[in-house]
Amino acid sequence: SSSSTPIRATLFPGDGIGPEISESVKQIFQAAEVPIEWEEHYVGTEIDPRTQSFLTWESLESVRRNRVGLKGPMATPIGKGHRSLNLTLRKELSLYANVRPCYSLPGYKTRYDNVNLITIRENTEGEYSGLEHQVVRGVVESLKIITRHASLRVAEYAFHYAKVHGRERVSAIHKANIMQKTDGLFLKCCREVAEKYPEIKYEEVVIDNCCMMLVKNPALFDVLVMPNLYGDIISDLCAGLIGGLGLTPSCNIGEGGIALAEAVHGSAPDIAGKNLANPTALLLSGVTMLRHLDLHDKADRIQNAILNTIAEGKYRTADLGGSSKTTEFTAAIIDHL
Amino acid sequence: SSSSTPIRATLFPGDGIGPEISESVKQIFQAAEVPIEWEEHYVGTEIDPRTQSFLTWESLESVRRNRVGLKGPMATPIGKGHRSLNLTLRKELSLYANVRPCYSLPGYKTRYDNVNLITIRENTEGEYSGLEHQVVRGVVESLKIITRHASLRVAEYAFHYAKVHGRERVSAIHKANIMQKTDGLFLKCCREVAEKYPEIKYEEVVIDNCCMMLVKNPALFDVLVMPNLYGDIISDLCAGLIGGLGLTPSCNIGEGGIALAEAVHGSAPDIAGKNLANPTALLLSGVTMLRHLDLHDKADRIQNAILNTIAEGKYRTADLGGSSKTTEFTAAIIDHL
Ligand SMILES: CC(C)[C@H](C(=O)O)[C@@H](O)C(=O)O
Ligand SMILES: CC(C)[C@H](C(=O)O)[C@@H](O)C(=O)O
Repeated sequence: SSSSTPIRATLFPGDGIGPEISESVKQIFQAAEVPIEWEEHYVGTEIDPRTQSFLTWESLESVRRNRVGLKGPMATPIGKGHRSLNLTLRKELSLYANVRPCYSLPGYKTRYDNVNLITIRENTEGEYSGLEHQVVRGVVESLKIITRHASLRVAEYAFHYAKVHGRERVSAIHKANIMQKTDGLFLKCCREVAEKYPEIKYEEVVIDNCCMMLVKNPALFDVLVMPNLYGDIISDLCAGLIGGLGLTPSCNIGEGGIALAEAVHGSAPDIAGKNLANPTALLLSGVTMLRHLDLHDKADRIQNAILNTIAEGKYRTADLGGSSKTTEFTAAIIDHL
Repeated sequence: SSSSTPIRATLFPGDGIGPEISESVKQIFQAAEVPIEWEEHYVGTEIDPRTQSFLTWESLESVRRNRVGLKGPMATPIGKGHRSLNLTLRKELSLYANVRPCYSLPGYKTRYDNVNLITIRENTEGEYSGLEHQVVRGVVESLKIITRHASLRVAEYAFHYAKVHGRERVSAIHKANIMQKTDGLFLKCCREVAEKYPEIKYEEVVIDNCCMMLVKNPALFDVLVMPNLYGDIISDLCAGLIGGLGLTPSCNIGEGGIALAEAVHGSAPDIAGKNLANPTALLLSGVTMLRHLDLHDKADRIQNAILNTIAEGKYRTADLGGSSKTTEFTAAIIDHL
């Protein structure tokens, strides 16, 4: 049973504030008796030729083996001749969907109340093909690639997610009035999948209009699914509605049932090592990982403790207008468990 | 002098509510003694082979001759074998920059106060190339084209605009960390132009981060310049901050000093002919046209009358929560002149 045999999960503490916020996750998960045994992997100091990046092959093997992991912020070292760490992870692990549950934190005031939406971003193709060239001097082109395979895969994930999480509606975001072939194929795939889920409402919204509606009234949306670049844009816009990337969980879904949850904020080198970082995004990402593992009791318990601590307002880190240390905020969450 | 010889300007009343809101503009401009003589052109009922659309060649010639015009909403009739009216105008008149001054309307409450930014969108290339094809079954691609020519042209317009309008900063919005060649060329051109305007601050902001910052704190931005699709997205997002497309002016700048101002909202066929439409976006677009003509006194007078009428709150159309007819709102603005 899961209480006797712990689940092994990979942990990438990451750079900058990564180790501190990872420590917070480990302590809270332990206090909540989450049956997870972490396998920690650090970003290397030399380029591993098998990954063409500072991420070692062993660390990727760890995620492949465990099928589940949590990742702190990783700053790709500047310089030529190696790949970005985030893009390496997406590519090597076929992390095809980036899922971001985006909800207002009770007691943390922004301009928007009761935001509750899920952005699901295709994470492998589109504008991120890397195919670009100069046609003649002064004329360059980039290729946006959309495939039936990747579009069906992410659409399937979105509808499955909506069903499992009791969501009512999936909106496919596109610009098919201009990119009729690429975004058109994306929509066609979404429609095909939508037919298999008659209980979930389906609609299509043009991206410019979607962004306007999101800032006017985010309650108009529920689950949003979209090609890579639109997902990049809209997931950050939605994070902004609730306060920013420091509060927004994220989880990447890969082939073969892999789930790599991650904090998508930066590594904040300026405050690293000072016990000032806010672990909320990494913690809530850890919660999405627990839900992926169907450990909903543990997920609820930890999520409620985090939200209640923030709502209470006594212990908040500096980015949320408080003066608590990372360790004090962590201890407060443990008290709320 | 301009008071004895009126300036001829083209007017496309457009479809749906277009004629009603155009009537409002004509009345207010007349009451303010704007020295403009309108040359009206309607969308045709048959495809003109020279434009491949329902826009007649004569109507385009009118804008080319007058070099200045105002356009209401145009609904492209559904069906095959003709081009979108908006895209035809952009193409035939080389409308290379879409400029949207986006400011909070005093007294009209949204979640944001004191928004005051200008989005400048490259309007001719990028993701709108129309070049798309199927590589193999299930794999399609779209080409994003960026040229040095068009990038320099729009960057030059943005910095010139900033200078003339006393703006402090231009932000170039991009995703050059992913599209290094295309967005990289766009940025390179912006940097070149920036060097010629040492008095204007220049910065580069990644589009996802830009959208997050815009919803968190739009005061962080001043003038934004960007490739076509990013401009499509961000200009609508910004319109959303102040209440929507019904309140947002827009002006297209073309080769040879052409300025075609336009309301970018839809033609609202459901309320057409009912004296319910809000003429604000078309009116404020007309104001941008007056500024382009250096008729700043008239522009200020009309803009203030519109803003004061809305701020007073006694006469507002239904979309702004009031119950005034278009003609009542128009009369109120004339009273405020
Ligand atoms: C850093 C960048 C390459 C990345 C992206 O564009 O995907 C980031 O914005 C993200 O969303 O993870
Ligand atoms: C209708 C559509 C083709 C158009 C565009 O994408 O440019 C619209 O969104 C706009 O902004 O004028």
